[in-house]
Amino acid sequence: MISKKMKQAVQDSSVIRAMFEEGKKRKELYGAENVFDFSLGNPNTPPPKEINRIISDILQNEDPTFVHGYMNNAGYEDVREAIAASINRKFGTAYGARNILMTTGAAGGLNVILKTLLDPEDEVIAFAPYFVEYRSYTENYEGRLVVVPPNTADFQPDLKKFGELITSRTKAVIVNSPNNPTGVVYSEDTIKKMAEILRKAQKEFGTSIYLISDEPYRELVYDGVVAPYIPLYYENTIVAYSYSKSLSLPGERIGYLVIPDEAADYEDVVNGAVIANRILGYVNAPSLMQRVVAQCLDMEADVEGYNRNREALYNGLVEAGYECVKPQGAFYLFVKSPLESDKDFCELAKKYNLLLVPGSAFACPGYVRIAYCVSYDTVVASLPRFKELMDEIRSKA
Amino acid sequence: MISKKMKQAVQDSSVIRAMFEEGKKRKELYGAENVFDFSLGNPNTPPPKEINRIISDILQNEDPTFVHGYMNNAGYEDVREAIAASINRKFGTAYGARNILMTTGAAGGLNVILKTLLDPEDEVIAFAPYFVEYRSYTENYEGRLVVVPPNTADFQPDLKKFGELITSRTKAVIVNSPNNPTGVVYSEDTIKKMAEILRKAQKEFGTSIYLISDEPYRELVYDGVVAPYIPLYYENTIVAYSYSKSLSLPGERIGYLVIPDEAADYEDVVNGAVIANRILGYVNAPSLMQRVVAQCLDMEADVEGYNRNREALYNGLVEAGYECVKPQGAFYLFVKSPLESDKDFCELAKKYNLLLVPGSAFACPGYVRIAYCVSYDTVVASLPRFKELMDEIRSKA
Repeated sequence: MISKKMKQAVQDSSVIRAMFEEGKKRKELYGAENVFDFSLGNPNTPPPKEINRIISDILQNEDPTFVHGYMNNAGYEDVREAIAASINRKFGTAYGARNILMTTGAAGGLNVILKTLLDPEDEVIAFAPYFVEYRSYTENYEGRLVVVPPNTADFQPDLKKFGELITSRTKAVIVNSPNNPTGVVYSEDTIKKMAEILRKAQKEFGTSIYLISDEPYRELVYDGVVAPYIPLYYENTIVAYSYSKSLSLPGERIGYLVIPDEAADYEDVVNGAVIANRILGYVNAPSLMQRVVAQCLDMEADVEGYNRNREALYNGLVEAGYECVKPQGAFYLFVKSPLESDKDFCELAKKYNLLLVPGSAFACPGYVRIAYCVSYDTVVASLPRFKELMDEIRSKA
Repeated sequence: MISKKMKQAVQDSSVIRAMFEEGKKRKELYGAENVFDFSLGNPNTPPPKEINRIISDILQNEDPTFVHGYMNNAGYEDVREAIAASINRKFGTAYGARNILMTTGAAGGLNVILKTLLDPEDEVIAFAPYFVEYRSYTENYEGRLVVVPPNTADFQPDLKKFGELITSRTKAVIVNSPNNPTGVVYSEDTIKKMAEILRKAQKEFGTSIYLISDEPYRELVYDGVVAPYIPLYYENTIVAYSYSKSLSLPGERIGYLVIPDEAADYEDVVNGAVIANRILGYVNAPSLMQRVVAQCLDMEADVEGYNRNREALYNGLVEAGYECVKPQGAFYLFVKSPLESDKDFCELAKKYNLLLVPGSAFACPGYVRIAYCVSYDTVVASLPRFKELMDEIRSKA
């Protein structure tokens, strides 16, 4: 018998697996080009061309025992130094290698920091809609996820509710901007107010509350928008970054944590995080990829490609009668379900070979997520199907 | 404030960190060639030369979006199929991709399977001396590590004590052969008897007890010895394998779990393990390295190099008056401390620039671990220092 918690997880996940299997079946049945799979956040854009040359250079010029070997659990010192310097150039910070911990993607980083911080029953606040794994990551360490209900007007967080939900057990708050699943970028005003609320609560309860900024989509922003760098607004911020989206390397599992000197109990947090990285079995972030990303610090994601998808999809959907906040980041559209039940809508969409994810999966029923990290051709070819889908719904209304 | 458990871990680890720092300081002070660092299991042997060519071939011939992208959380289907076929050729098993889960090294695999299996207060049995992280891995999931005391006669497990320690809460047993820190290979006789004891206990308690075989050192065997393939002896065996030692890729974090069809509740265990891989934040084993190892299945570690070290070190130490069971696997010697306290002995050894790990760190005080995955020159140059160290101890006795 497996553990009771995992038995439950297996039962819950069978729905998602069924959806994945159905997608596969439909592709075999109708041809991959006739199935519009908007369900996965797997970048369709290839990694920058230079990546392969950089890997080859490293393999030719560096000692293989060093490149593929163990290093400090925190990561190669020179890699951490280079990343710190690059952040300093961008945001005027004064980080050194001491502030950077290389991690197995942002998912690894989030697990490391939650393992480091959480005592049983400690509370972690997330804002709906939120990335579904935050609940698992929190419960892995016996923490309790506390959810701020969604503000569907513009999907900026509901700060009033947020303030009310902070308690003496609040250990951390997770923010994700640009956001999965809405694509919304939290504004500077939002971040400033959030920082004020947190400082006030820290004083009131005599505690430290860490703001964990999960930002794999940092560089994926449009319309000249810049996502505020949160450590500049709130001292107890820890950043979890990933190269999965910016360099299209999601399978390689490479990212980092930033733990600023200003964070409360900095020494303990850093030392604890290094140990957590080891005892959770990551040991260290994959070694060759550490050395690769250190040479890609000024490379840019294919923002233009994503933007073209965004414009085409957003305009096409609105034209067909869908309602949606136009997102300024990431590669997701979060569309209001034209049926009351987002699950029913996703079911009906399948008839048109449109694969979407119900907002319920992100604690925000009544909406669906469309991941447009697909080819432009897929976007264009999908639009008539979205229209037919809406027409069917209207004809029955 | 970080969590109470992690605060304790930070305090405990400061001793090891101090040792590491002292090693570094000594290397600066005396020159790296004059410090004999036997403290780390970091292979000194470079990876096979073909590895770099294989990586280059993959980068040239395969689609980068595929090579660096997400795949099923269990790993690439073709990689899992190739690994299953290779195990089948070696051991006559009938595995398919369905039995293989690609993991972030063996450490990742062990965490995944323990997360899958353990309810709070479930017991996991380990045999002293054991790899120190087994305790952390077990406690990560609220399990309790139960330790069978060492059998210092030959370091085969004490099976009588083992039988006595099994209870109705025993969920798993971890074996590690070839063993870290002793280098001992568990004999076929040991494995057969262990299997009998486990079957009897399963019947008595009406439970399933999983034998988790942690075998990163499988191929590192000498004197023509073969480590028995445990799934052939006990049906509820799950294997955690790593390429860290066999291909000298410890920094890359690549390995796999074998979950045989015959394992109790196979479906739940496999489905649970795939979910655990995801929610623990590994998501998937590093993608490029998955494709690399699939092309290295018949490559061999530099066993001859390690064997030369083993012979020179073992013979030199015995000649100098040390007592040690001659190991038949891995790259460790586990030497009886000539002082009553292994910690005092390791302290004294530092005077001769010999860096060793006390057996206490493996729940086996009175011994020290010497990791001989260093250059042959280091081994040879260290022998006179080991002799001087013994001479000093004898002169004071």
